[in-house]
Amino acid sequence: MSSENSVGVVAPQRARFYDPLLLRSGAEMPGFELVFETYGQLNRARSNAVLVCHALSGSHHVAGRYADDVDNVGWWDNLVGPGKPLDIKKFFVVGVNNLGGCYGSTGPLSINPATGKRYGADFPLVTVEDWVAAQGRLADHLGVETWAAVIGGSLGGMQALEWSLQFPERVRHAMVIASAPKLSAQNIAFNEVARQAILSDPDFHAGYYADHGVVPTRGLRLARMVGHITYLSDAQMAEKFGRQLRHGEHKFSYDVDFEIESYLRYQGNKFASFFDANTYLMTTKALDYFDPAYEFDGNLAAALARARASFFVASFSTDWRFSPARSREIVFALLHNRLRVVYAEIESTAGHDSFLLDDDHYHALLRAYLENIAV
Amino acid sequence: MSSENSVGVVAPQRARFYDPLLLRSGAEMPGFELVFETYGQLNRARSNAVLVCHALSGSHHVAGRYADDVDNVGWWDNLVGPGKPLDIKKFFVVGVNNLGGCYGSTGPLSINPATGKRYGADFPLVTVEDWVAAQGRLADHLGVETWAAVIGGSLGGMQALEWSLQFPERVRHAMVIASAPKLSAQNIAFNEVARQAILSDPDFHAGYYADHGVVPTRGLRLARMVGHITYLSDAQMAEKFGRQLRHGEHKFSYDVDFEIESYLRYQGNKFASFFDANTYLMTTKALDYFDPAYEFDGNLAAALARARASFFVASFSTDWRFSPARSREIVFALLHNRLRVVYAEIESTAGHDSFLLDDDHYHALLRAYLENIAV
Repeated sequence: MSSENSVGVVAPQRARFYDPLLLRSGAEMPGFELVFETYGQLNRARSNAVLVCHALSGSHHVAGRYADDVDNVGWWDNLVGPGKPLDIKKFFVVGVNNLGGCYGSTGPLSINPATGKRYGADFPLVTVEDWVAAQGRLADHLGVETWAAVIGGSLGGMQALEWSLQFPERVRHAMVIASAPKLSAQNIAFNEVARQAILSDPDFHAGYYADHGVVPTRGLRLARMVGHITYLSDAQMAEKFGRQLRHGEHKFSYDVDFEIESYLRYQGNKFASFFDANTYLMTTKALDYFDPAYEFDGNLAAALARARASFFVASFSTDWRFSPARSREIVFALLHNRLRVVYAEIESTAGHDSFLLDDDHYHALLRAYLENIAV
Repeated sequence: MSSENSVGVVAPQRARFYDPLLLRSGAEMPGFELVFETYGQLNRARSNAVLVCHALSGSHHVAGRYADDVDNVGWWDNLVGPGKPLDIKKFFVVGVNNLGGCYGSTGPLSINPATGKRYGADFPLVTVEDWVAAQGRLADHLGVETWAAVIGGSLGGMQALEWSLQFPERVRHAMVIASAPKLSAQNIAFNEVARQAILSDPDFHAGYYADHGVVPTRGLRLARMVGHITYLSDAQMAEKFGRQLRHGEHKFSYDVDFEIESYLRYQGNKFASFFDANTYLMTTKALDYFDPAYEFDGNLAAALARARASFFVASFSTDWRFSPARSREIVFALLHNRLRVVYAEIESTAGHDSFLLDDDHYHALLRAYLENIAV
């Protein structure tokens, strides 16, 4: 990306919410803070706001860079900027770190006012519905009555879908990318392995590791490694790594033999160095629990009947985490309700991670859709 | 299975081999023992012997039950017995626990004669080639010059293939089921996660856990959980577990919510209670390293040119660990060499584990092929 169509230097902002939030679990979240970023200007009609929802490891830092950390580029910087598909000359774009996150919003690493210590395991389990409820507070704070669009990939797409259900009148376009209406047993199984890796790490200390001055690095590292396998396609792994040897020969030891091992260890170590284990656990549970059809005897069409938004749904051919078939479930349920839907199955070798990449066809579709949104 | 076509009560036997075995790694295995079982009678022409090779968690206990442990039924009991597809009225069937195993053959839990302590991490890494070399010693011991067939599923299939390459004149039929000519990057990636789970378990003690009186249970448990996901198909998991809740409601905790979590934890705990971690590590490496084409610039046809056996190759439609495409690679390479091949892609919902199951179509194919083998 050339710097001329970057949003440039950005800075996070914070908003504090004083009213307690009743969570889906029945627990009550007292006052909380959300950290967020905005790009572009809210127009006078307040009709051009777009909310970007993040996935498992994402944050409020969607685009641009920080003055004091110039290498820290936003995770969807290829999408958001002046002249980019999500064009900040037209839109006022908002990124927010979800409640329970570990990038600055109130979460397990925050101080629990009831104890004066970090929440740790006392932080309540939050769900996709709770995140959207909290994002609703942020919309109020920003003076956004109705989003022109709510957009997200993967778990972010679930939030976009949930916005259309929890606040049908407050979102005109829901853009649900590389997502699913609920996890499959296999999806849950992978999450459970990741959780057990963290929960069984002796440094986890039942979630109160911060009180012990340690971090369950081993567990987080394994969780990220297994996650990474599901983000990439078999074909892409074959192309990128194949059976390439790191040292040109078999080592007959448990050091790195194959490049794919080196890659996974690197990704695992990097992630474990900054991500919070309680946030990870909670986020996998939010994924597992998400199922709008749950209250409708599994009938997704009935669950989506209350939506009023127009929808953009996209999936990627080699995504085996949330395959195109999962997006089609959403599309069928929307069409059943005679809602407007644009749906694209995009050829891509990059698996689930495709939604983050700067693919010409994908970005052209997003651009075309976003250009057609009236503000 | 009715008891009338069971092999009945069986007992393991042991054979000791005194000549050192030079391993592929360059290390030398001094004298070693293999534990094995036999079913049926070797005929006078010694032409009816069939070797059954086991996969990752299998053993020499292929069929029948033990007098003092009647619930411990052999892992391929549905296949092997009088009147069963691998009919012991016709064949003399041999099951063997591989070198480095943890069911009685010399392995990491054995006493290292050099130190008087358990080998642990000092046990050399053995490969598929080494297993087959050791099985060759067992064939000599049993007076079997030529196997009527060598058969195996998954990693067992790799051994059957390797037999046809290492001892071309000593195997008349190689039966390679649910297997692959080498692991993909994704296959290696899953193995690497399993290894890292074990290696990073504080109870692993660099492989010398026996000296510390502990077992890396956490790591083994995680390794088995992630393995199990790859043994089952997405479709079968959906059918068997779907999103069924264990307690009829979301618990908003990290206890079991979904049945699939309960299943994985059970499988992980069970496995970790009896399997040896060093054997597990070594076996995943044997899988990763297996690649007959490695010495032939990746040309599998060239690698298989020295085979003289007839081949039975089978794959299962929903096996995503070793998909039908992987079996077809073997078939194409065999056909290129004008070798006789029977190949079947079998419809099955059960994923990789299909090779262990009593499917009518699958067993009818095996029966037909085995009936045609002259003894």
